[in-house]
Amino acid sequence: MGSENGRNVTIAMIARLAGVSVPTVSRVINGRSDVAPQTRERVEELLTRHGYRPRSAARRTQSALIDLVFNDLDSPWAVEIIRGVEDVAQASGAGTVVSAIHRRTSSAKQWLDNMRTRSTEGVIFVTSMVEPPLQAELRRLRLPVVIVDPAGVAPQEAPTIGATNWAGSLRANQYLLGLGHRRIGFIAGPPQLMCSRARMDGYRAALDAAGLAVDDRLVRPGNFYHESGYTAGMHLLGLSEPPTAIFASSDQMALGVYEAVRKRGLRVPDDVSVVGFDDLPEVRWCSPPLTTIRQPLAEMGMLAARTVLRLARGETIESPRIELATDLVVRDSAAAPRNR
Amino acid sequence: MGSENGRNVTIAMIARLAGVSVPTVSRVINGRSDVAPQTRERVEELLTRHGYRPRSAARRTQSALIDLVFNDLDSPWAVEIIRGVEDVAQASGAGTVVSAIHRRTSSAKQWLDNMRTRSTEGVIFVTSMVEPPLQAELRRLRLPVVIVDPAGVAPQEAPTIGATNWAGSLRANQYLLGLGHRRIGFIAGPPQLMCSRARMDGYRAALDAAGLAVDDRLVRPGNFYHESGYTAGMHLLGLSEPPTAIFASSDQMALGVYEAVRKRGLRVPDDVSVVGFDDLPEVRWCSPPLTTIRQPLAEMGMLAARTVLRLARGETIESPRIELATDLVVRDSAAAPRNR
Repeated sequence: MGSENGRNVTIAMIARLAGVSVPTVSRVINGRSDVAPQTRERVEELLTRHGYRPRSAARRTQSALIDLVFNDLDSPWAVEIIRGVEDVAQASGAGTVVSAIHRRTSSAKQWLDNMRTRSTEGVIFVTSMVEPPLQAELRRLRLPVVIVDPAGVAPQEAPTIGATNWAGSLRANQYLLGLGHRRIGFIAGPPQLMCSRARMDGYRAALDAAGLAVDDRLVRPGNFYHESGYTAGMHLLGLSEPPTAIFASSDQMALGVYEAVRKRGLRVPDDVSVVGFDDLPEVRWCSPPLTTIRQPLAEMGMLAARTVLRLARGETIESPRIELATDLVVRDSAAAPRNR
Repeated sequence: MGSENGRNVTIAMIARLAGVSVPTVSRVINGRSDVAPQTRERVEELLTRHGYRPRSAARRTQSALIDLVFNDLDSPWAVEIIRGVEDVAQASGAGTVVSAIHRRTSSAKQWLDNMRTRSTEGVIFVTSMVEPPLQAELRRLRLPVVIVDPAGVAPQEAPTIGATNWAGSLRANQYLLGLGHRRIGFIAGPPQLMCSRARMDGYRAALDAAGLAVDDRLVRPGNFYHESGYTAGMHLLGLSEPPTAIFASSDQMALGVYEAVRKRGLRVPDDVSVVGFDDLPEVRWCSPPLTTIRQPLAEMGMLAARTVLRLARGETIESPRIELATDLVVRDSAAAPRNR
């Protein structure tokens, strides 16, 4: 019974089996109240048993869709951005189609092939870089495209939404300086990303404004991932004059520093203060909860969705790049240095 | 110029402006190679300047969609499940429409209204409970429905995909027993969820099989969230005879125990071993990295997508509930007890 393909079951068949008229079956299907309860029950039972599915489903006018494309769905970032896009999309009656293209041309092509058969309103990419062949194809399709780029690689071909990386870094380091720290370690992101440079410059600007010189031994390379934070943290804590605070320019690197602190038999913030950058959802549950700079990822997703919908309506947008404000979130991982 | 609504720009207009024929513009739009480069460039430029969008986009045959519905998009679980569903959906040419209904009737109705206008292949719910009015409406639409239910509330109206909660809990506690622990604390989940009961029973079974009685003072209530793990951890560590290991039946509660351990001035695993349940992506970056029971969330999403697609083709499925195997992931948060 269950193997019957529901699409071949017609209302007429159900009407015949139930001993009622076709309009009666239609009334049951459409949830109308003018059907006797026993009749409704019998028809419902037959519809379910035969797996009836409305034929019209496939022919209905299609509602709006927004395509939201990630390189990979493995980052805790992803769900924050999805949340923001979905919120705006659903409120405007649009569905959010989430895809991952895994930085592979074949996946990007598959996504394009699928996407072309949908009437999507527009595409939001979450990435630092849309590959040129994909850019060319999207240009050809003339779909509205918006890029959510927390990493801040500029310029892009499409309107881009980012966050204020320089200002966030400045704020983090001003906070540590305000606690009394004078030796602050810095762990950088990949130099090819503009946001890495902006965060580095925010660090330098904060020290400079406080009349402190940058000690290059306290500046370590990283790649935003946990492992590089651990390595840089182990190095910094092993210096003859270690820093009293470390500003890791991503939360994952900050958690790597936590692990280095633990491996060295030290404690956060008693022995060393740590501040991160991102405010990933889980860092409030670290031990100790991480003080960090919040990137408004959900809000960036919301703005991206609003921008795509505006472009789809043929509206102009104010600026090709918009940066949303970052914010200091104070938790328990930074304190005054022990020896001043 | 940019405010011009691209949908009103026709190929004929572009052809006139470019001084070429309509078929030539079509060839450019369709990416054909039989157009002179200068012509292509001129037409491309005009198409872009006037924001041309193919009219046919809205009339194209629609490709398949799968609706993936969460209560909330605030859990680190969500992205794992999305990843699994998207992987299978994309490979079969379907798009994954992600929605959140926030446990609100109004949101569920909005989603239903939007979804009805799409020709979705079927719906995957990620939830412990589909509300009865929503169930009734979906029954009426006769769409394939599959429930991904990591929490294991049975029975459901639709096919359900879960994980082996009892076996996972048994494994975690056998591991701690194998390390030499005899006083193992247990932090439970909400009693109304079947998975909480299954994890509790796995704990009891492991102790019982090892010839140990359950000490009720070591069993504490929780609700799977961080705060309850912290509270239970503070209580357990404050006992006159504290446990040497704590099995928290969710990762978030395990991280709450980490915080309690820190607040008590103790260390994981030196003073107390901690094991969690879930294997959320971030627990590998805890300090120390968390030993836990892995729920195969991405695989559960993959199976859900395959099941929906099979149901949409009218195939039968083997079982109304499938549980995928959980697995012990050994990291650094458990060690032999110090005093045996």
